[in-house]
Amino acid sequence: MTNPSLLILPGDGIGQEVMAEVRKVIDWIGAKRGATFDVSEDLVGGAAYDKHGVPLADETMAKAQEVDAVLLGAVGGPAYDDLDFSVKPERGLLRLRKEMDLFANLRPAQCFDALADFSSLKKDLVSGLDIMIVRELTSGVYFGEPRGISEVDGQRVGVNTQRYTEAEIERGARAAFELAMKRDKKLCSMEKANVMESGILWRDVVTEVSKDYPEVELSHMYADNGAMQLVRAPKQFDVIYTDNLFGDILSDCAAMLTGSLGMLPSASLGAPMENGRPKAMYEPVHGSAPDIMGQGKANPCACILSFAMALRYSFDMGEEATRLETAVEKVLADGVRTGDLLNEEGVKPVSTSEMGDAVIAAL
Amino acid sequence: MTNPSLLILPGDGIGQEVMAEVRKVIDWIGAKRGATFDVSEDLVGGAAYDKHGVPLADETMAKAQEVDAVLLGAVGGPAYDDLDFSVKPERGLLRLRKEMDLFANLRPAQCFDALADFSSLKKDLVSGLDIMIVRELTSGVYFGEPRGISEVDGQRVGVNTQRYTEAEIERGARAAFELAMKRDKKLCSMEKANVMESGILWRDVVTEVSKDYPEVELSHMYADNGAMQLVRAPKQFDVIYTDNLFGDILSDCAAMLTGSLGMLPSASLGAPMENGRPKAMYEPVHGSAPDIMGQGKANPCACILSFAMALRYSFDMGEEATRLETAVEKVLADGVRTGDLLNEEGVKPVSTSEMGDAVIAAL
Ligand SMILES: CC(C)[C@H](C(=O)O)[C@@H](O)C(=O)O
Ligand SMILES: CC(C)[C@H](C(=O)O)[C@@H](O)C(=O)O
Repeated sequence: MTNPSLLILPGDGIGQEVMAEVRKVIDWIGAKRGATFDVSEDLVGGAAYDKHGVPLADETMAKAQEVDAVLLGAVGGPAYDDLDFSVKPERGLLRLRKEMDLFANLRPAQCFDALADFSSLKKDLVSGLDIMIVRELTSGVYFGEPRGISEVDGQRVGVNTQRYTEAEIERGARAAFELAMKRDKKLCSMEKANVMESGILWRDVVTEVSKDYPEVELSHMYADNGAMQLVRAPKQFDVIYTDNLFGDILSDCAAMLTGSLGMLPSASLGAPMENGRPKAMYEPVHGSAPDIMGQGKANPCACILSFAMALRYSFDMGEEATRLETAVEKVLADGVRTGDLLNEEGVKPVSTSEMGDAVIAAL
Repeated sequence: MTNPSLLILPGDGIGQEVMAEVRKVIDWIGAKRGATFDVSEDLVGGAAYDKHGVPLADETMAKAQEVDAVLLGAVGGPAYDDLDFSVKPERGLLRLRKEMDLFANLRPAQCFDALADFSSLKKDLVSGLDIMIVRELTSGVYFGEPRGISEVDGQRVGVNTQRYTEAEIERGARAAFELAMKRDKKLCSMEKANVMESGILWRDVVTEVSKDYPEVELSHMYADNGAMQLVRAPKQFDVIYTDNLFGDILSDCAAMLTGSLGMLPSASLGAPMENGRPKAMYEPVHGSAPDIMGQGKANPCACILSFAMALRYSFDMGEEATRLETAVEKVLADGVRTGDLLNEEGVKPVSTSEMGDAVIAAL
């Protein structure tokens, strides 16, 4: 049997730094659990643009298609702000999502007990919060055609197309219902069926799929109300299923509620490959944080927890995943903090690498 | 000189009840300030559907075009949930917005001192909060063509089109910059220029318009980050300018932050009419609240404050507007509360009409 394979794409900004800590975890698993990964590394985003003139080289894309899982750091930064749309660092990320067909983006919004005070929200509204947002990731307005800026009657017109097929809505919905079955069996679907026909189809299809999951309590909510309810009483939600664009906004909103933004992982899953594993890419929710890049200040936990999701969803190592998650929680409970997790003066933050070491020590 | 004219469209649910309190304010202004309004009333939403089979009759539309301002209550309710998309109560609202060409939707998100405890957010993050969201209201994905559900290769496909012309972006931007000039001279424009070409055009045009307002400090933010920042530190914002769909979600999110959802008004403004007044419709942010309809429980303040916006933007009665707003604040400070503004057991809420009377008494 061949080793499971992992392609690491650190990307830009703090990507490289947080990835170094994940490598410690990988080494630990190799040494202590006898699971060896074939790890390769490549460029994405601005880093790829600097070398190849594109945010994702074809060779990298080909590699991503072959491995069992991709682990991505972050893309973008001010150095690339003035690039043309077609070669922006983000396009590398979108190409990976689209060509690997990673249709189900899992974004847990979980509030770590030790960090509940960091939330903007009152503690009782968020402590124990544990939502899973499933965002459709390969369709909708991100990819719909026609798109672009053209000149009509002497003025520029910008067009994007929100487009969803039944099949696209359905496969994401199944992923969401499956997750709900393993959780609290509640699913809330969000769209704007009151103003968009694509939202009507969304509601229809999700309702249809729900018949295969009679145990799951399904509700529907307009996305604007969804944003309100997330702020008002986030604990009312278990699994939320929504489209690519609403999911982008609502999952960021939910992430911020937790007070643990620097802690949050994500998984983007596609169809099963020949070996039964889903196509998969894992990445922290935070960005490339160019302001603290290269200073050893980055919090590696989100990336480490993204690797935990990889252990769970790609490598059938749910036990190790839980162990890693527990280690991170323990470290937090012990008061170990990178700078982003501190707001009192006088408390000394640990470095990226000290945080990684602390997690390893707690494993 | 003819009297200023006002068309009242109570709509559904609690619309009728809150409008009765606005009428008291109108009477007060007539009696005490000598300003008489020509007030007419008509149907919209489900109420119009029940009578005419459409959510807005042509005659009502024609009236709305003629008056100086429209004051709308709320539309919709469970009785209409199963209606066909094309006759849903919401379509009445959208028809008014579109045919009156009300391109600038002003949605203040203001935290009333006396209600700061009601926010989900920690008090220091929201007390004194005063944001003005300007949402483009007559274009974007709400109205773009093509749209609809069709059958392609044996499966249904839902399509909506995000479409913005330069001119559409520009006129809303000018409205937003004008407001910023009267406020803290800060404007943040929100889009998804990293994934949508319509967002690139948006950013371009707003930047171009900003040259006419050198005193206003302009910033740009991706809408997902905008949702995060609204939750993290809402007081960083003064005026926000964003598109129809992002504006729908972000303004609801911002409204919920204030803890004063039942208190928030809105104005939707178009181009100046022959008499120099802008085409205008005013409406509370809250919905038709069918659950409390007919029980005298509704909070009329949002509708009263919407009328205050009408005094300011349509009737050149800024002084009276401020007076009305101050009266509402005073009533709150005095502890007068409708049920939606209470969370302690034992405190007795006042009725809709008692709240209206209290505001009049405080004028
Ligand atoms: C970087 C950007 C293209 C991306 C998106 O809009 O999907 C990001 O916001 C995300 O949520 O992963
Ligand atoms: C009722 C609905 C059509 C409307 C919208 O989506 O614009 C509402 O949410 C609003 O914000 O006024």
